[in-house]
Formats: sequence, C-alpha cells, structure tokens
Amino acid sequence: MTKIRAAITGINAWVPDYILTNQELETMVDTSDEWIITRTGIKERHILKGEGKGTSDLGAEAVKGLLKKTNTDPLDVDLVILATVTPDMLFPASANIISDKVGMKNAWSYDLNAACSGFIFALDTAARFVETGKYKKVVVVGADKMSSIVDYTDRTTCIIFGDAGGAVLLEPDTTGYGMIDSKFYTDGSGLIYLHQKAGGSLKPPSHDTIDAREHFVFQEGQSVFKFAVKGMADVSVEMMKRNNLESEDVAYFVPHQANLRIIDATARRMKLDNDKVMINIQRYGNTTNGTIPLCLDEWENKLKKGDNIILAAFGGGFTWGAIYLKWAYDPEN
Amino acid sequence: MTKIRAAITGINAWVPDYILTNQELETMVDTSDEWIITRTGIKERHILKGEGKGTSDLGAEAVKGLLKKTNTDPLDVDLVILATVTPDMLFPASANIISDKVGMKNAWSYDLNAACSGFIFALDTAARFVETGKYKKVVVVGADKMSSIVDYTDRTTCIIFGDAGGAVLLEPDTTGYGMIDSKFYTDGSGLIYLHQKAGGSLKPPSHDTIDAREHFVFQEGQSVFKFAVKGMADVSVEMMKRNNLESEDVAYFVPHQANLRIIDATARRMKLDNDKVMINIQRYGNTTNGTIPLCLDEWENKLKKGDNIILAAFGGGFTWGAIYLKWAYDPEN
Repeated sequence: MTKIRAAITGINAWVPDYILTNQELETMVDTSDEWIITRTGIKERHILKGEGKGTSDLGAEAVKGLLKKTNTDPLDVDLVILATVTPDMLFPASANIISDKVGMKNAWSYDLNAACSGFIFALDTAARFVETGKYKKVVVVGADKMSSIVDYTDRTTCIIFGDAGGAVLLEPDTTGYGMIDSKFYTDGSGLIYLHQKAGGSLKPPSHDTIDAREHFVFQEGQSVFKFAVKGMADVSVEMMKRNNLESEDVAYFVPHQANLRIIDATARRMKLDNDKVMINIQRYGNTTNGTIPLCLDEWENKLKKGDNIILAAFGGGFTWGAIYLKWAYDPEN
Repeated sequence: MTKIRAAITGINAWVPDYILTNQELETMVDTSDEWIITRTGIKERHILKGEGKGTSDLGAEAVKGLLKKTNTDPLDVDLVILATVTPDMLFPASANIISDKVGMKNAWSYDLNAACSGFIFALDTAARFVETGKYKKVVVVGADKMSSIVDYTDRTTCIIFGDAGGAVLLEPDTTGYGMIDSKFYTDGSGLIYLHQKAGGSLKPPSHDTIDAREHFVFQEGQSVFKFAVKGMADVSVEMMKRNNLESEDVAYFVPHQANLRIIDATARRMKLDNDKVMINIQRYGNTTNGTIPLCLDEWENKLKKGDNIILAAFGGGFTWGAIYLKWAYDPEN
C-alpha cells in the first residue's frame, strides 16, 4: 500500500489595510522606532479596525482567497481546523463561523489552541486525517486578531503584535511529497511567563478584571526570550538530525515570527544562510497563528516542488515544535 | 499490515462535591423542581466552588484518577487533547496546565473547541494519532466549569448546566477492538441560537459587556431543541446503517446529556430499549464536554469486551456527530 502523505497544495494569507507604524506607536506609548527595531525587528503591523469584526473575518478572507487560487469548490472541503488564541467568542468555534461565511457546508470543523505553536500543531493534526485516505481536502487556518487582547498602554507588548489570517489546503499525495516528520513539545510550567490573567473559567470577566487590565497579553519578555531561543533552535536542529538533513539540504526555514533575534539565533544554530530564512516580521509583527502562513504565502512563488522545508514555532504554554515537509508544487509562472 | 485502531483502555470522571439541587435553584430564580424535571430531566448538578479554580482543576482530577486506575506512568503519555469551552484562560491552553499539574512532561498538548461535540471531535482526532502507530498513549480530556459562564439570574439556562471533567486513555489495538467509524457535521449558521455574546475578539470584555451580562451562555432553547433532536437522531441512525448495525447489535448508546427529551427521542429513532441508553443527566445536568466520559465512567463495570457502542453529541455551532466503537476490555471484577 502506498504511503499517503498530506501535502500543502495551496496557500493564501490576508491582512487588513490599516498599518500601525512604529511612528504612530511613538505617539501612544513611551517608545521609539529605533528601540523597537533593535529589540524586535518590527517596523509596522496591520490592525483590523472597526466594530463587529473578529478573528473569523481574518480567517474567512484568507480562506476565500485560498479556495479561489486553488479552484476549490467550498462544498468539497471535508474538514476545517482553525488555530487561534483570539476566537470571536468562546463558543461556538470560530472555525464554524469561517465555514459558514465561506460556504464550506460539508466540512466539520473545530478550533485548536496552542498559542503561537497552534498553526503547526493544527497542520500536523490535519495531516493525520489526510493520511487516512478518507479526507481529500482539509483546510487549516491560522488567524488572530491580536489587537483585541493587546494593551495599547503597555509599551513592552503593544509594539509586538499584529492581526492576520492565513490558510493552507492539504490534499493526499502518494508520490513522496508533503509532510514527512514532526516533533512537538509542551511545558505547562511556562504559563507564569506568558498568559492572559482573566477571561476564562479561572477568573471570569468582571468589573475588577476590566479595571485591572487583566484581559490583555501578559508577558515576562526576558524569560520568554531565553526559553524561545533555546526551544526553537533545539527542535529545529533536532528535526534536521532526525531526517539526516544538512544545512545545504534545506531550501527554506519558516520560523514563527515572534522576534527577529530569536529567528536569527535559530538560523545560526541550523547553519542556514540568510536567504533561506523566511522573515517578514518587520512588516507584520507577531501575528501569532498567522505568521507561518503569512511567510509561506509571500514566498510561494520561490518554492519549488521537492524543496525541503522546515517550519518551527515557539509560544505560550510553553509549546514548541517543528515540521519537516517536501514542498509539493512548482510556482505558477 | 495489521490495521491499528485506537481503543479506549481506561476511563475516569470527576465531579466537585458541591451539589446544586432544583430546590436551591427555586430560591435563586422563579422556577420549580417539577418544571425543571419535566423540561430537562435534571434534578441536581455539581458545581466547582471557591476562588482560583478553573476547568483545568476538573480535568487534572479526572486524569490523575485515570492514570492511577490504568497504572499509567504520566511520563509515558505522548499527547493530551482537552475538549473544553471554558478554558482557564484564552492562553496558554488548559491542556498544558493539566499536563503540568499531573506530570505528563513528555506529552505535547492542545485545547480543542467544538462546544458540546468537543469530546467526540477530540476523541476522533486523538484516534488519528494512535492509528499512525507512533503514539502509544494518548489522553483525551473533556472538562467544563460551566458555572463560570452560566447566568444564575437567567432561569432558562441556569437550570441546565453543571461542572465536570472526564478523561479516557487511548492505546493502539490490532485485534479488532477500538474506534471503527465516525461521522461529524458542522453548521455555522446555528450560531444565532446558542453562543456567548462577548469575551472574544468580536466583542472584547468591557464594562459595558459586563453590565449587559454578555459573558454568559445565550440559548434560544426551543430552536436548539428542534435542531438537536433531528441532528443527534439522524447521525446516530446513520452510524448504525453505515455499519450494518441493528438495534439488537448495539450494547450501549452514549448520548451527550443536554436534555432528557432529546436523548429519549434519539433512542426511539434507534429503536433501543431504555436499558441500553446511558443517562445520568438527572444527577449532573449538561456538563458540556464532560457528559460522555461521565457516562462511560459510571457504566464502566457493565461494559464487556466486544460491546458495540455508539457515542453521539449535538451542540453549539451547530456541531454534531457520532462514533462507533467496539469496547476493548472486560470489567475488573
């Protein structure tokens, strides 16, 4: 029996029009363009403005474009998994809302939450369904309206995050392309360094939690940075070793975009030249579950069939991991 | 190559001590024991009292008991999936918090959200990992502290929900037992009938949302009831037909416990005698992701190896579906 692999056969990302620059942030909090760029590498980020818009709007736009690009009938999609930390609401799942907006009426769907590692966790989960042979078209969405949980009076976090949505189509491949290997880790003791203090069952919303600004991202940046540098580099190198890949065998490394210095440190450990590392954090910031599809979308026309690609992420939880895949299609042009 | 199936090899559930009776509810809202029993079948529900306790506490207690019952070293668990609509907070994932509390240090983990169908969606997802042969021990948790999102001034919803956690251990089986078939549906247009109005990215928490009581379960009960009766019965009958099961072939039906009348209507459509239908809603209410493991745990000593069992759920989203499995072990005694 031929081994069925899950191959990414299409990618699309979407960001809202509004651009929040470092210059605008200088007018909001005590910071500077130079300080932000030195510490994070970020110059600007896109923000979803307007009432009544949530993460499902980001995801739906990404999926609409994906289905159009890949000539996919929405009714042919079997399963939709949305990775997000900012669902429209706690229930129903925002994946269902996206499916409804886009017309994927025959798909079942759910939300998956693993903070910044959510997209690669969801991609691997979706792959398990494709590998059964019963699922022909699975859509994996990574989307976050981070601006809904960012405190724009906290200069340590508000400079980091942006809003975005991205989506990939997964289909079965029996010719050797697609997702080959994955390795994931969780360490729940990392909670103290990066979390939301209120808004869930531990501390439901109240006037007190609103006044205490406890619904926003809390991050002890220095500690997270140290864990992230080690975690993302270790697992990325482990993924190369597990699959006997030398640096020259890797066509592209697709890191979660949390901080330019974390990405650089990881790429050095992998001994990769700069031109093999996808980096667009300067224009989007950390869009949490949006970062990896945002990169893949931007580099899509450079990716060739058979390219060895490593995806890696580190995020709240802590959660971290890496995926090794062989890209399954050549550019259009 | 022998087909690997994912078999439930252990089950445990946990409820907090405090019991909220219909009599106590009569003192809180304009209702009566008789009215509640007639409409829902519920007599009492367990509530997690005390500050600083969240859904992860329910899940962790369930998992601790599960690992003890099954003599499982927490370090041997490969993956933990928590189905919940009431995570401790939006990030990190409460599955990570449970893993940390219980010492499952080698497992990666994430939260899955599909409202009341979450547990069966998570069970099926976990099965895909076990079926690869690479995952030897996967823990699926269903837990919800529903009391954290229930408005105890709304007599139409506060009578329904309770708090509980349950967990199953999944291991590979190559002898024909375990999970055989599943079928799931989502219809995002059901959002209007059952949802949370605020608390996510669409409408972040604010003093206004607190005052408007928008962080609680909103349910348009009559409509949900109609959809649920049809949805759960249709998919349960479909599951029997897909697998050529007559009513006499089914040992037990394990329905999500949302409403006694929905369960009764489904059992009639399946032509099942009452003694084959697991019902404990009268003592626990609707514990959302806790209901199905709560039933399996209570009936565990009656289940025999080879029993044909159908699990089914319907919930917010709308989401619904059914799983057919062959029970993999005999009672201890």
